[in-house]
Amino acid sequence: MEATDNSSLVDLVRIRDALREFNSAREWDQFHTPRNMILALAGEVGELAATVQWIPDSEVDEALAESPLREEFEDELADCLSYLVQIADRTGVDLAVAFARKLRQNADKYPAELARGKAIKYTKLGE
Amino acid sequence: MEATDNSSLVDLVRIRDALREFNSAREWDQFHTPRNMILALAGEVGELAATVQWIPDSEVDEALAESPLREEFEDELADCLSYLVQIADRTGVDLAVAFARKLRQNADKYPAELARGKAIKYTKLGE
Amino acid sequence: MEATDNSSLVDLVRIRDALREFNSAREWDQFHTPRNMILALAGEVGELAATVQWIPDSEVDEALAESPLREEFEDELADCLSYLVQIADRTGVDLAVAFARKLRQNADKYPAELARGKAIKYTKLGE
Amino acid sequence: MEATDNSSLVDLVRIRDALREFNSAREWDQFHTPRNMILALAGEVGELAATVQWIPDSEVDEALAESPLREEFEDELADCLSYLVQIADRTGVDLAVAFARKLRQNADKYPAELARGKAIKYTKLGE
Repeated sequence: MEATDNSSLVDLVRIRDALREFNSAREWDQFHTPRNMILALAGEVGELAATVQWIPDSEVDEALAESPLREEFEDELADCLSYLVQIADRTGVDLAVAFARKLRQNADKYPAELARGKAIKYTKLGE
Repeated sequence: MEATDNSSLVDLVRIRDALREFNSAREWDQFHTPRNMILALAGEVGELAATVQWIPDSEVDEALAESPLREEFEDELADCLSYLVQIADRTGVDLAVAFARKLRQNADKYPAELARGKAIKYTKLGE
Repeated sequence: MEATDNSSLVDLVRIRDALREFNSAREWDQFHTPRNMILALAGEVGELAATVQWIPDSEVDEALAESPLREEFEDELADCLSYLVQIADRTGVDLAVAFARKLRQNADKYPAELARGKAIKYTKLGE
Repeated sequence: MEATDNSSLVDLVRIRDALREFNSAREWDQFHTPRNMILALAGEVGELAATVQWIPDSEVDEALAESPLREEFEDELADCLSYLVQIADRTGVDLAVAFARKLRQNADKYPAELARGKAIKYTKLGE
């Protein structure tokens, strides 16, 4: 991603605003209840999973580099982001603040010196 | 979300960089293959779904406004965003560009005058 | 479902065997690794979620009774069952035994007198 | 799974009946709307995905053979089956019939001679 550019959509606020405008023009806000959009997000993550479901770990980088899988994969990521931002907007969650708080919590749960090189749950780190 | 602030994490590039630093300090990049993270994202979306699974549509706004469900819900949204940004980073996808492209595609698929007030697939809009 | 009929597929063993035969004829076992099929199951559950994503709670029974949504919904349930049985078969899990054990565990976690009429986690039942 | 045994839960009808009894004793039917249970299923599939999220393809068989991951994995499969059967029961879907129909459809979509050894969508089989 390019560094911040006023004309870009790299900013979560701009993404949110673009989606607001899109939905408003179509009168779609009425459908965007929290549970509706969480079901829709589950659908998009399912489509993302489907793009790599038959590709072994060892071949996935190469496969994702080629058309048309590349574009499908990017589209599914975009769809996931889109619903995530809309769910947050609809429920009044500031995604940036929530992300920053969660990152601090994770830093506490997974101290670098204990968690280094380990993919285990924090409750088992001290064992 | 507040308007762009250089010190904030409202920018997808800053979120990505914060996650890079976090993972690098823990030597976790070795675990962050595309399929591993897509499975992890499915897990987080499942946890998000679980926060509202027993709450009827009509009560969900009120329920999500109260502690501790509020914080759980925000945490799950943050976790979803976190994996989404990491998947994009690992696979070289510029989320901002992908989002902007998908939004344009959707604008073509769902012209405002045809799609207004309708929650149906674009393939059925002309019917 | 009809009561047990030897010619039917109501039995998990028969469903498993039908899928074994189907896959064997197509030489598809090579693709059916545990992680591949879990990603595929996430995809099918996503499609199931999508069938009801824009239908409010109060209208879902009526909507699911009508074609073609009825058939789509049934197909997605069948797809989910299919992958579930194949995942269990590939990993040597006896679904019937696993189900019976889990049901006993849940009966212990959620005693009827404590859990009656409550949709809360067992850890909070005594509060 | 053992061959059909009248005392076992290998039969979808018996599984359904065991769940009906379980829910009835707890007065839980009131919570088991279609959308509630689909959200719950998404949660369980997410937990299933989480059991293998950090295990590479090449190590997953060995990892799933060992306690306590083995039991966690079996529990998640059981939970998925449980919600699947309850969703079908609540919406009046005969899972055995739906499965048999879908299997016939797939046999038509994926003729053995065309689909042999290929993990591609049926729409691309003739290419």
